[in-house]
Amino acid sequence: MTEKIYEQLSLLGKKVETPERPEDAVLETFPNPHPDTDYVVRLTAPEFTTICPITGQPDFAVIVVDYVPGPRLVESKAFKLFLGSFRNHGTFHEACTVYIHKRLQEAMDPKYLRVVGLWYARGGITIDVVVETGTLPPNCTPLPIGRTSYRGGRE
Amino acid sequence: MTEKIYEQLSLLGKKVETPERPEDAVLETFPNPHPDTDYVVRLTAPEFTTICPITGQPDFAVIVVDYVPGPRLVESKAFKLFLGSFRNHGTFHEACTVYIHKRLQEAMDPKYLRVVGLWYARGGITIDVVVETGTLPPNCTPLPIGRTSYRGGRE
Amino acid sequence: MTEKIYEQLSLLGKKVETPERPEDAVLETFPNPHPDTDYVVRLTAPEFTTICPITGQPDFAVIVVDYVPGPRLVESKAFKLFLGSFRNHGTFHEACTVYIHKRLQEAMDPKYLRVVGLWYARGGITIDVVVETGTLPPNCTPLPIGRTSYRGGRE
Amino acid sequence: MTEKIYEQLSLLGKKVETPERPEDAVLETFPNPHPDTDYVVRLTAPEFTTICPITGQPDFAVIVVDYVPGPRLVESKAFKLFLGSFRNHGTFHEACTVYIHKRLQEAMDPKYLRVVGLWYARGGITIDVVVETGTLPPNCTPLPIGRTSYRGGRE
Amino acid sequence: MTEKIYEQLSLLGKKVETPERPEDAVLETFPNPHPDTDYVVRLTAPEFTTICPITGQPDFAVIVVDYVPGPRLVESKAFKLFLGSFRNHGTFHEACTVYIHKRLQEAMDPKYLRVVGLWYARGGITIDVVVETGTLPPNCTPLPIGRTSYRGGRE
Amino acid sequence: MTEKIYEQLSLLGKKVETPERPEDAVLETFPNPHPDTDYVVRLTAPEFTTICPITGQPDFAVIVVDYVPGPRLVESKAFKLFLGSFRNHGTFHEACTVYIHKRLQEAMDPKYLRVVGLWYARGGITIDVVVETGTLPPNCTPLPIGRTSYRGGRE
Amino acid sequence: MTEKIYEQLSLLGKKVETPERPEDAVLETFPNPHPDTDYVVRLTAPEFTTICPITGQPDFAVIVVDYVPGPRLVESKAFKLFLGSFRNHGTFHEACTVYIHKRLQEAMDPKYLRVVGLWYARGGITIDVVVETGTLPPNCTPLPIGRTSYRGGRE
Amino acid sequence: MTEKIYEQLSLLGKKVETPERPEDAVLETFPNPHPDTDYVVRLTAPEFTTICPITGQPDFAVIVVDYVPGPRLVESKAFKLFLGSFRNHGTFHEACTVYIHKRLQEAMDPKYLRVVGLWYARGGITIDVVVETGTLPPNCTPLPIGRTSYRGGRE
Amino acid sequence: MTEKIYEQLSLLGKKVETPERPEDAVLETFPNPHPDTDYVVRLTAPEFTTICPITGQPDFAVIVVDYVPGPRLVESKAFKLFLGSFRNHGTFHEACTVYIHKRLQEAMDPKYLRVVGLWYARGGITIDVVVETGTLPPNCTPLPIGRTSYRGGRE
Amino acid sequence: MTEKIYEQLSLLGKKVETPERPEDAVLETFPNPHPDTDYVVRLTAPEFTTICPITGQPDFAVIVVDYVPGPRLVESKAFKLFLGSFRNHGTFHEACTVYIHKRLQEAMDPKYLRVVGLWYARGGITIDVVVETGTLPPNCTPLPIGRTSYRGGRE
Ligand SMILES: [Ca+2]
Ligand SMILES: [Ca+2]
Ligand SMILES: [Ca+2]
Ligand SMILES: [Ca+2]
Ligand SMILES: [Ca+2]
Ligand SMILES: [Ca+2]
Ligand SMILES: [Ca+2]
Ligand SMILES: [Ca+2]
Ligand SMILES: [Ca+2]
Ligand SMILES: [Ca+2]
Ligand SMILES: [Ca+2]
Ligand SMILES: [Ca+2]
Ligand SMILES: [Ca+2]
Ligand SMILES: [Ca+2]
Ligand SMILES: [Ca+2]
Ligand SMILES: [Ca+2]
Repeated sequence: MTEKIYEQLSLLGKKVETPERPEDAVLETFPNPHPDTDYVVRLTAPEFTTICPITGQPDFAVIVVDYVPGPRLVESKAFKLFLGSFRNHGTFHEACTVYIHKRLQEAMDPKYLRVVGLWYARGGITIDVVVETGTLPPNCTPLPIGRTSYRGGRE
Repeated sequence: MTEKIYEQLSLLGKKVETPERPEDAVLETFPNPHPDTDYVVRLTAPEFTTICPITGQPDFAVIVVDYVPGPRLVESKAFKLFLGSFRNHGTFHEACTVYIHKRLQEAMDPKYLRVVGLWYARGGITIDVVVETGTLPPNCTPLPIGRTSYRGGRE
Repeated sequence: MTEKIYEQLSLLGKKVETPERPEDAVLETFPNPHPDTDYVVRLTAPEFTTICPITGQPDFAVIVVDYVPGPRLVESKAFKLFLGSFRNHGTFHEACTVYIHKRLQEAMDPKYLRVVGLWYARGGITIDVVVETGTLPPNCTPLPIGRTSYRGGRE
Repeated sequence: MTEKIYEQLSLLGKKVETPERPEDAVLETFPNPHPDTDYVVRLTAPEFTTICPITGQPDFAVIVVDYVPGPRLVESKAFKLFLGSFRNHGTFHEACTVYIHKRLQEAMDPKYLRVVGLWYARGGITIDVVVETGTLPPNCTPLPIGRTSYRGGRE
Repeated sequence: MTEKIYEQLSLLGKKVETPERPEDAVLETFPNPHPDTDYVVRLTAPEFTTICPITGQPDFAVIVVDYVPGPRLVESKAFKLFLGSFRNHGTFHEACTVYIHKRLQEAMDPKYLRVVGLWYARGGITIDVVVETGTLPPNCTPLPIGRTSYRGGRE
Repeated sequence: MTEKIYEQLSLLGKKVETPERPEDAVLETFPNPHPDTDYVVRLTAPEFTTICPITGQPDFAVIVVDYVPGPRLVESKAFKLFLGSFRNHGTFHEACTVYIHKRLQEAMDPKYLRVVGLWYARGGITIDVVVETGTLPPNCTPLPIGRTSYRGGRE
Repeated sequence: MTEKIYEQLSLLGKKVETPERPEDAVLETFPNPHPDTDYVVRLTAPEFTTICPITGQPDFAVIVVDYVPGPRLVESKAFKLFLGSFRNHGTFHEACTVYIHKRLQEAMDPKYLRVVGLWYARGGITIDVVVETGTLPPNCTPLPIGRTSYRGGRE
Repeated sequence: MTEKIYEQLSLLGKKVETPERPEDAVLETFPNPHPDTDYVVRLTAPEFTTICPITGQPDFAVIVVDYVPGPRLVESKAFKLFLGSFRNHGTFHEACTVYIHKRLQEAMDPKYLRVVGLWYARGGITIDVVVETGTLPPNCTPLPIGRTSYRGGRE
Repeated sequence: MTEKIYEQLSLLGKKVETPERPEDAVLETFPNPHPDTDYVVRLTAPEFTTICPITGQPDFAVIVVDYVPGPRLVESKAFKLFLGSFRNHGTFHEACTVYIHKRLQEAMDPKYLRVVGLWYARGGITIDVVVETGTLPPNCTPLPIGRTSYRGGRE
Repeated sequence: MTEKIYEQLSLLGKKVETPERPEDAVLETFPNPHPDTDYVVRLTAPEFTTICPITGQPDFAVIVVDYVPGPRLVESKAFKLFLGSFRNHGTFHEACTVYIHKRLQEAMDPKYLRVVGLWYARGGITIDVVVETGTLPPNCTPLPIGRTSYRGGRE
């Protein structure tokens, strides 16, 4: 149907190295295949890890993104490589979740964008961060967060 | 009660071949048996598979449809055959989910229609697509998506 | 407290035969014991079965009823016998769920009535039907549908 | 902090007999320790049982109470003894749930009060009753009913 | 591979009426396609209903069958029609479960056969019946009963 | 098939009062309808309550019985009335569970009998008691205790 | 990115003793790293325990905090030490939950703050307390309370 | 039935202070009410907390005890006070779990004893310790550890 | 450590077409990297689909393989392509599951091999097939089948 | 009780860098505090990640270790640092799981040791590896793998 729009993608179907820092990652996008219809896309990524800038120890999180596309959609392999670039990068929970949001916002200019970071427990306490911008257009309701979210097949 | 309305259905109770392409599938409908009452119908289909146009590898999804009927309802065997026609068809997640929505919209002209595609994980990331049009009439609230949805008896 | 209102019930505590057809079933009611308070009643019935009018094969469903009583409440044994009368009766999913709704509406004249039919899978697809009429009065919110609903003790 | 308000309680920390009838139970209350803040209190009581006035057989239910305190809060041991007083008392599901609501309303004069009775199945059908009065003040949202509710440690 | 063995089946792929009584049902079988390998087959049937011979009221159950085939396997549509034949048949829980076992034993002469009947609650009590004969050959362990068992897509 | 064996039952299908004390309850039995086959029967009763002999407060439990019948089976209504007779009876958790086991043993003389009492929490601690006698005959394995056990439709 | 804002924290990464009383605990904060974006932070702490002022016995609870930061965020180790300071402190459920709310309010001056205390059962009854102030800004919806909440890895 | 055996208990039904150290706690026992029957008792205690001897920070665990009584049973309030005595006591996970086992062994001399400590996560890793002595007599199988275990009504 | 053993693999990391028939698929293997240690490998594949040879309609299943390697292990991409080759291939449930087992047996000559096919419901009945050969060496116990098994991230 | 045995630990309670390669990590141990009692210790670590040596992409797994200590126990912070050292290390699933087992075996010389690697899905297929050596002494049964295992507080 709409396959031409994927033609200029440079990462999909090729072997590409994970960028070394989030700043180096390119969040490649492609044109919205259905710009006449508002719809919601969710990306759930349970394979996310960073480094604590103070202790140097690794942190882990599940990242859940919901967005209503504007002119462009993020390509999912580019999104995966972007997330992978945090692997050896020092950052705090709140700041990191907001930064992911800002990069997606910049790359796609979506009508609505929500990024949720569900961080693993430290000191007996978990931290969740929910960052959301834009307005849900009519007929756009993200799915509930819960059992439908993916956790790497290790549920 | 209202059995005459089913009389002209050509697929139900007969052996019919799965169409080879989505374009060939006929989404047969029958008249709304209760046109004076607004109600919500959900169809949950966990047996859905397509081909990735770039890698040639199969993709899998659960498709959940909620609609408020207008003049006609989709016949469920026709819907099943329509879904089966994607089996050897190359398509992307977002485009495919929107296309299913468009075909149902065209075939039934419902008052409200939502199609949700819950695609299996690729590269450690799942993608969900929610496409919704029309306005929910008063007294019409779809069921929540979650545990009530069917997954082939393989829960 | 309010026991006189139950005195005229003809079915409760007696051995009564299941009616042979839904049309023969009497949905006996009793006066609302608290007509000055709006409240919500849920009846969950996982023991419901009908016959497919085309294939002659049995169908199964869970029926969930939520209502805000008006002048009268349906007596639960009468409701059970009514449901039992569909056992050898041919009917389709959508039509049957709407019919149950109409009979309860007629029998009780409630302020609000919702009937949900959660039908077992056929052809790899489940069908749910939600039929709702009336307006929820202030202070009346039905329980969510999900884990709280009863499934015959066979959860 | 606010311990004086508990000083006049006559039941807490003492051995007290369960009243023989609901009418005999005293729903002792104490002054709202934070009258300047609206908040929601939930009491979940899975240990509730009554007698069916017609068959003489026991009935069981889970009682969930949500309220926004006004001038006074119900003391939880008094509430427990009140529930215990239904043990050998004949009553119907709907009437009983409304009666519990009325007694709590009378005893506390809360800003908002919801009583939910989740009755065990009889004849293959469960009955739930939701009785709610008052208006939720701003910043007061009860917890959802579901998995967070207590069932006697026998989950 | 082994398709000739299915050629003499008289029910599969045809429209066949449900027998009126269990005694009338024919449990059609076909030759074991792999007689040289011991394996376990599970059939899970949540759509099972009978009549109580004393009260005339319907009973419901989930039937789970595990067997190690001997010379022949039961054809699944024949099994479905057999179960359907209990629909208007009066029988008790224990006796019925054992009877299903005896008919399957007779029809297939399996090396091992277990029939489990998980009956819906009556009087606040559920009854489960487990009937098992034969010896599990080496390398034959049935799946555990639990979450993997099917309940009509209505979980 | 085997209906004569139920003819002498005095409680089933009649209105019978709950005995006032466990000692007064008659655990009526009927002849094993399949004495030639060893099978396992499970009765799950979540509606069980007693009185603490020291504090006078009610206790609650779920009772799960698994047995392999010998010459006779316990009739389930008799079992229900027996359990009901503990309602105003003072007893401790361990002693009570063993007593139920002894009465069933006496009444039925089964080949194997296990009674499990899952008592609700007191003082932040739950107590479970498992009492088992006899030997499981070949081909008799009780179902696992867990999710398959019934909790009054209030799961 | 924004690491300077953490520089003045006195507790993180050092060995600090738990304060002996809640009044002694300092709820250290740091500047909001993204003051231009409204977002929601959830802290879930299942390791919370107090002393009952009347019986001297320990109480346990799960504390869930959702807030929309204003100028400052609470540092999570300071929050942990604050919760730890209740360990040998006598307090009641409702008063304690409101007190935690007040301290967080004072320390952070957030735009919105909700504290939920899910207290373990006493006398067969659980108590939940929900305290909430402020207004949710646009684009700020806390996550649902339920399965996503943390319970010490002991789920 | 067997109430005299409880007469010498000094803690039950009285207000007793929690001992300050585990060494001070008395694990009061009472005579086995059914010394002629082997049975399994499980005590599940989710309200357990200690102090880390190195960091001074609190640790939390769920303690599950299964035993087959010999001459005496541990009284459950004494057990609760014993667990409470660890509240301000420094100890490591493995050593503490074994110590609880040793004290119960000493106090009761049971035929079989298993103590399981399910400790909350530290550093992203949970530790479970299983300590077991004695031999299970015939007809004694502890319940599986899992969903049936109690977690303070906060599931 | 042992990377040379992967050098001769022809499929991994390359774009390869799915074979058209199971007979055409090559189950490529590589040498056991730890031939001195017996261990169990599980592969869980929820993305499996075939064609019913009689109705021409698609069937779906989850395939779970557990094996103890002998001299060689199956390469997981080769296994995936093998499963993909059933996509347009007509086969029955029992025969297909046994065939998968035979091909893996042939390709790897493992010490133990179990293949489980969990087929989606047809006619209201699910079919599971368990095929197992060889003997579990000491210290080799497969994981239980249940919640730990993967279902495409669509749980 | 046994605190001297912890005195020589060099990592606990100090800030230590994660080793760069598994070969550099020291699996520090301490003397078994209860060498006279056989017991089982489980460590569950959901925060584990490696690099695929062929694609360079990250892999994720949950590692579950069960062991019966011999003369020494692994210190849990050392274990955590050891797991952290795989972060930028290329390795395959089977080989990596066996290597973890070998290092623990070497470091502790336990009586029994099982390492389970539950790897996240790749290509729609999950891989689990179970490596086990030694013999379970009497009175040593590891907990079942399933719901009791920890997943970072993100269940
Ligand atoms: Ca919508
Ligand atoms: Ca969403
Ligand atoms: Ca509505
Ligand atoms: Ca309301
Ligand atoms: Ca409702
Ligand atoms: Ca609010
Ligand atoms: Ca509420
Ligand atoms: Ca085997
Ligand atoms: Ca089985
Ligand atoms: Ca057996
Ligand atoms: Ca059992
Ligand atoms: Ca929002
Ligand atoms: Ca036993
Ligand atoms: Ca083993
Ligand atoms: Ca296995
Ligand atoms: Ca053992």
